Amino acid sequence: MLLNETRLNSVMAAHGLDALIATSPENVTYTSGYWALSQWIRRGPQSYVYLPAPGKGTRRIVASATLLDLLADQDINVADVTTFGSFFVDTDPDSALNRCDQRQTDLYAQDRYESAKEALAALLRQDQAAIRRVGIDETGLVGSLEVFQLPGAENIEFVPAFEIFREIRATKTEPEIERLRRVAHITEDAISVALRVAKPGVTEREMAEAFNIETIRGGALPVLYCIGFGSRSAMPNVQPSDATLREGDIIRFDAGGRYQHYRADIARIAVLGEPSDKVRKYHRALHLGVAKGLEMIRPGLKASDLYETVMATVRAEGIPHYKRTHVGHGIGIDGYDLPILSASSGDVLEEGMVLCLETPYYELGFGGLQVEDMIVVRNGGAETLMKTSGELISV
Amino acid sequence: MLLNETRLNSVMAAHGLDALIATSPENVTYTSGYWALSQWIRRGPQSYVYLPAPGKGTRRIVASATLLDLLADQDINVADVTTFGSFFVDTDPDSALNRCDQRQTDLYAQDRYESAKEALAALLRQDQAAIRRVGIDETGLVGSLEVFQLPGAENIEFVPAFEIFREIRATKTEPEIERLRRVAHITEDAISVALRVAKPGVTEREMAEAFNIETIRGGALPVLYCIGFGSRSAMPNVQPSDATLREGDIIRFDAGGRYQHYRADIARIAVLGEPSDKVRKYHRALHLGVAKGLEMIRPGLKASDLYETVMATVRAEGIPHYKRTHVGHGIGIDGYDLPILSASSGDVLEEGMVLCLETPYYELGFGGLQVEDMIVVRNGGAETLMKTSGELISV
Repeated sequence: MLLNETRLNSVMAAHGLDALIATSPENVTYTSGYWALSQWIRRGPQSYVYLPAPGKGTRRIVASATLLDLLADQDINVADVTTFGSFFVDTDPDSALNRCDQRQTDLYAQDRYESAKEALAALLRQDQAAIRRVGIDETGLVGSLEVFQLPGAENIEFVPAFEIFREIRATKTEPEIERLRRVAHITEDAISVALRVAKPGVTEREMAEAFNIETIRGGALPVLYCIGFGSRSAMPNVQPSDATLREGDIIRFDAGGRYQHYRADIARIAVLGEPSDKVRKYHRALHLGVAKGLEMIRPGLKASDLYETVMATVRAEGIPHYKRTHVGHGIGIDGYDLPILSASSGDVLEEGMVLCLETPYYELGFGGLQVEDMIVVRNGGAETLMKTSGELISV
Repeated sequence: MLLNETRLNSVMAAHGLDALIATSPENVTYTSGYWALSQWIRRGPQSYVYLPAPGKGTRRIVASATLLDLLADQDINVADVTTFGSFFVDTDPDSALNRCDQRQTDLYAQDRYESAKEALAALLRQDQAAIRRVGIDETGLVGSLEVFQLPGAENIEFVPAFEIFREIRATKTEPEIERLRRVAHITEDAISVALRVAKPGVTEREMAEAFNIETIRGGALPVLYCIGFGSRSAMPNVQPSDATLREGDIIRFDAGGRYQHYRADIARIAVLGEPSDKVRKYHRALHLGVAKGLEMIRPGLKASDLYETVMATVRAEGIPHYKRTHVGHGIGIDGYDLPILSASSGDVLEEGMVLCLETPYYELGFGGLQVEDMIVVRNGGAETLMKTSGELISV
């Protein structure tokens, strides 16, 4: 199970909530295991997980009739399903159905509500004696104002829960960490394969194609692939173009795929030929900043202290004018989880957090340099998810 | 420009709106050309396009400081930008900046608001004499309730606009149609390349890998790849598994990538070896259903009439028990645009609509068959975006 039950319940209690409702793809999959295709590739389709606090009701998936096959075919950890909408599937009377087809048949046979909202209203009505204050993830809803005025839910106080779900997801379970380790390795391998195409005249687009194809070969999906050459590498979100690689150019990767719904976000720098003294000096400072941060990571460390030390290291080691709002963030089923490693962050590191620790540097007219590693906060310190070091690569 | 200005203004007027606010990735890119990476790969990041009705204010992009490089590097059709948030980029004092870097420098130098919401509130305050009723796409917002209570916006009536934007996007401009044609062809090519791996023992996952790699080689991104073998092809949203292909198996593709943000959604059926009589007969009926629909398409046709004719054809031609809620939908920057081709649809076909016309049939224990073509509604009738026919493929 991806979900951390204990943390779900303690965060719900801390916010004084009787129930939470997951509505975004990330939160639906995280809390139930249910991956409802259409909401992952569009805005609009509604899939929910209704999560009453212990003793206040029954956990349920609210699923569209058009997506019940996925419920039958996936590893789901919520037993009860409420369905809505209209959909037709036939059954071959002459075939013995396998387990998945039988499960589909049972799901299609359930009574259905007309819409997701009616289904949700019915659940809230059913538990109305116990449910007064409900956190609802506002980012997956269509017609959010209507939801807050559901018939039967007039007495419920709704609280936006996008940030509350981020709090729950901030520490990772071991199954989550395994996926993150895998996607980190897939991404490192893809960077290394992509760098094999490096030669004068190759385009950013060609290198990105090699990176994305290797991501797919590794079993992941391309998501983030900021790949820039030369002065274009200074663009923080550089999108691969027809710009060509020249001798001495920086090649900046800030990239990561999605594997079993979990994200990577890693940065590595290569240079075609000999790096200049400035590139060497600056990159070394950025790399030492990350290394110093990795050394001090342990549960209980304030994110702001980690930020200050990393920043001070980069400044002392070679980029005295280095400025950043943060030096990293959590990662999981979302690419930007808690904690945030910034000066003003109130976050404190906890066991099981997975962090992207990063020191990007962008200088227009020169280029961009960046080290970004993925690590797990363990009781003994940082456990790296990387196979490679963030050292400057010469190709 | 992707946006249809005339339609934007007429739909806004029809809904009595003084302004529209795009907040979802699809609507931000559609109305401005601005592709703001982070909102495309996560829920949470805020990017808006503020679109006052003619004469009521100035159109503006509301952009995070972390994404200004993309604004500088892309083909944007909104001149004015309001920025928010904190971000640091250095400039090499010894380099002459190119045009893109100079544009970035100018954008970074603008005064910034602290948050997206403060930026939006400022725009609404500025135009408050003319702006009373505002449509806001609710699907891209975090903390939607706060937005509806923005300081300075207390007198504004907010209307959820997710559906209003769908109405605007329902007919396509020629630049949109060109992208849709390209992604349709990329998807057809990828199906044909993927089918080359078909042989006994190959897994759904291996065929999906071939499909997705060819999608990337074509310049698109993998998004939808429902690929199922044998009885698994009956799952409407079948996700590639380790199930292996056997002689006589149906191979169902319901698939499409994303090219320059525009989506494909195409279905083709192949069989390994000789199709059974039932497969031949049913597939022929589904294919004739689509063919009949294509023949009658013209501006002014009621979507519900198209639905009835397609359904009647499939039933008459070989599947008398055929049931469906719809026989297709629009497609564009979103995978499921208006119109909807159903019995209860009030939609009427218009010139420039791009449709997925489809006749899927799912029978548990047997398999799934489906024909789905992408076409443009032209004054002279349907113009196909397909290079291949939807005929049954034997491999």
